[in-house]
Amino acid sequence: MEKIDIKTLYDDSAKFEGKEISVAGWVKTVRSSKYFGFIELSDGTSFKGLQIVFENTLDNFSRVEKLNTGSSISVEGVFVNTPESKQPFELKAKKVNIICATDETYPLQKKGHSIEFLREIAYLRPRTNTFQAVFRIRSVAAMAIHTYFQQNGYLYVHTPLLTCADCEGSDQMFKVTTLDMNNLPKDKDGKVDYTKDLFGKLAFITGSGQLHGEAFALAFGKIYTFGPTFRTENSNTKIHANEFWMIEPEIAFCDINGLMDIEEDMLKFVVKYVMDRCPNELAFCDKFIQHGLLDKLNTLLKSKFTRITHHEVIDLLKASKNKWEFEPDYEGDIAKEHEKYITDYFNGPVFITDWPKDIKAYYMKLNPDGKTVAGVDLVLPQAGELIGGSQREDDYDKLVARMEEMGVDRKSIEWYVNLRKFGGCVHSGFGMGFERLIIYLTGMENIRDVIPFPRTPNNCEY
Amino acid sequence: MEKIDIKTLYDDSAKFEGKEISVAGWVKTVRSSKYFGFIELSDGTSFKGLQIVFENTLDNFSRVEKLNTGSSISVEGVFVNTPESKQPFELKAKKVNIICATDETYPLQKKGHSIEFLREIAYLRPRTNTFQAVFRIRSVAAMAIHTYFQQNGYLYVHTPLLTCADCEGSDQMFKVTTLDMNNLPKDKDGKVDYTKDLFGKLAFITGSGQLHGEAFALAFGKIYTFGPTFRTENSNTKIHANEFWMIEPEIAFCDINGLMDIEEDMLKFVVKYVMDRCPNELAFCDKFIQHGLLDKLNTLLKSKFTRITHHEVIDLLKASKNKWEFEPDYEGDIAKEHEKYITDYFNGPVFITDWPKDIKAYYMKLNPDGKTVAGVDLVLPQAGELIGGSQREDDYDKLVARMEEMGVDRKSIEWYVNLRKFGGCVHSGFGMGFERLIIYLTGMENIRDVIPFPRTPNNCEY
Repeated sequence: MEKIDIKTLYDDSAKFEGKEISVAGWVKTVRSSKYFGFIELSDGTSFKGLQIVFENTLDNFSRVEKLNTGSSISVEGVFVNTPESKQPFELKAKKVNIICATDETYPLQKKGHSIEFLREIAYLRPRTNTFQAVFRIRSVAAMAIHTYFQQNGYLYVHTPLLTCADCEGSDQMFKVTTLDMNNLPKDKDGKVDYTKDLFGKLAFITGSGQLHGEAFALAFGKIYTFGPTFRTENSNTKIHANEFWMIEPEIAFCDINGLMDIEEDMLKFVVKYVMDRCPNELAFCDKFIQHGLLDKLNTLLKSKFTRITHHEVIDLLKASKNKWEFEPDYEGDIAKEHEKYITDYFNGPVFITDWPKDIKAYYMKLNPDGKTVAGVDLVLPQAGELIGGSQREDDYDKLVARMEEMGVDRKSIEWYVNLRKFGGCVHSGFGMGFERLIIYLTGMENIRDVIPFPRTPNNCEY
Repeated sequence: MEKIDIKTLYDDSAKFEGKEISVAGWVKTVRSSKYFGFIELSDGTSFKGLQIVFENTLDNFSRVEKLNTGSSISVEGVFVNTPESKQPFELKAKKVNIICATDETYPLQKKGHSIEFLREIAYLRPRTNTFQAVFRIRSVAAMAIHTYFQQNGYLYVHTPLLTCADCEGSDQMFKVTTLDMNNLPKDKDGKVDYTKDLFGKLAFITGSGQLHGEAFALAFGKIYTFGPTFRTENSNTKIHANEFWMIEPEIAFCDINGLMDIEEDMLKFVVKYVMDRCPNELAFCDKFIQHGLLDKLNTLLKSKFTRITHHEVIDLLKASKNKWEFEPDYEGDIAKEHEKYITDYFNGPVFITDWPKDIKAYYMKLNPDGKTVAGVDLVLPQAGELIGGSQREDDYDKLVARMEEMGVDRKSIEWYVNLRKFGGCVHSGFGMGFERLIIYLTGMENIRDVIPFPRTPNNCEY
């Protein structure tokens, strides 16, 4: 008898009416009386489980009625739609095969567990309702992103993670080596002799695929990356992890205004896609994780995103009567409290453009004022910054001057600079931290709870 | 005037008949006479370019007719379908705006270049026909994989790359550190003091997400990973790279036979998906890269994959009259020459199952004979091994015994072993190297030519 996924039963329950089917999964709960009992079974393919009804005519009734949470079983029985009851259908068991029964040592008992405790059992937490919801939303959101970009003619590029260019600042990158660290070869100056290493020089894992993405955008017109990135940042906050996933699209013949159009369009597409496909998961998150989540997402879909310059933002902040912890500054960054004020003020998402050049990266297009760059941050109500992007400096001489000004070593990325000579053009791109998006979509508070096996300082378990 | 992608013109040329449109891209070729000329323009969104017709009434006619390959331009003009000519349509230019003209220093001139030369200019080679075809096929194949698994109810899991478990054999993994390698902290025994490192211990980048994938399969039923993996292998072959992408599905309540069904179904889906969406790219590959490529792919779609045990394969090899470089061995691996013989013999793809346990990994299910394991390699005609998979050992005691036998340190992956106690079940999974698939789909010979920026020993440029 072919095993049927519970998802398939929800997708087309009429088709299975009265049929003998087989299912397999894990026990969530068991209730029983003298003559019969109920099992709620999850097989992980559907957020909602399947109700199994079993009677004391089963050979192993006494063992089945004592099954503990987390036990794996397979069941053969007759599928019946039950439109008059609480659950839409059930399976009347003819046979319950106990595969692996858990006992009282099983860490996930019926009772609720704190999110901190669950973090410590990262290999089991995907079995709980919360993480069933979060990680399914994560999976569907990833597919939403691929779907959006592929439908719109973007090329998916796997930019390299290993790099020997340290232009990002090598202190923010993990060093990577095949050398015996207890017995490092040394050169004549007593320094590590990396010519003996696999790549013949010091290598890193990168924090961005942007530079390589630009090279591909200038060949394929529109590209995106979607892969893991790494930061060595030693900070224990709710929003920092040392390994996370990032999406970095890059678009040729596109200026900062076109870029904002794309960001807004993409974000709405992704939110809608996830809402269409994860109604049960989002309803759960709305109820148990962040009240108002569905309202927040529905509001986003209807919002027109505001576009405002950094200078205008500072004007607004200064004009308000708020007491700021961080004084608004025309030359400075925008703090969390400022972001909140601005999104409240406009009652929706806000693109902040034209940032002071000294607080932004060398590759951002210098504006005609010589003081600001064509960078843009997207700030969302309740969530803060989700996306950072910019029009890129496409003028060879200006790029070289900015790199010199900011002390960026050009030697290892001469090819990147040369892209400006060889058919260069106006082009723009952005980076979106995938975990920030998942935090936004689920209402979870801590980045550790939206990554399957998070890596943070002093925490690389599992 | 809105810029139109050339792909959009090919998708619906009738819609644009007689319309004024704007396009932007890079010059492939220019031909001109006294009164008019032709530009073949590529914008990267389509394998086929757009023909621009320009006349000497243009202000900048003399500059336009001298444009070199690779120059970026934008063009405004009238779109006309030309069903009677070689190309299906053309753009009659009213205005040609030269954005960035290349000169004779541009490394990609009109003439053909050797694949080895192009490898040295990895940032420009995506602009050539060959790499336009290869990298678009790569992108579409990636989407095919996501589509297959998501449509079939699999969860996409981002397993971690950073790990502190060295069960794979730490000599095959890159070490990762934030320590100053020229000034390493030492413990009292004079060894590197990794407690000072970011994670408080020695960390690696992993070569597989399988173990984490299994934990998620035992919660979500069916999962897949798709991400970069790393090997330190110091070998300069056509099929080895130090960084590559891998797909690792894992399925609960699925034995080795179910696994082979999935592999066959997935592979045919992916090939069909790419053939449907990349006809021009594949036709190019068939013509210039591997003659017979399309036949090969069409044949695969119609093949029924053979299933045969390792023992039976050795029987066949021994019974043949071939002179073998490597003598077939019931206890040994299967060499390239053997793979070729077997796929020729069955005239199609072959699953080889039930391998001698000593040459396979500890996590493969031990068969009742106590000598073989339920592993399976998929071998394709002309391509060799594409996929390796197995039913996993789900018996706690047997797994522990195998780990001891093979000297695998259990301490750091106790959680993995415990999955067998906590609702364990029959489960199976496989790993497919994405680059092997792209080599198969494009006919390219060298892994360096299917990866955007390949990393191989002594080669980490760009």
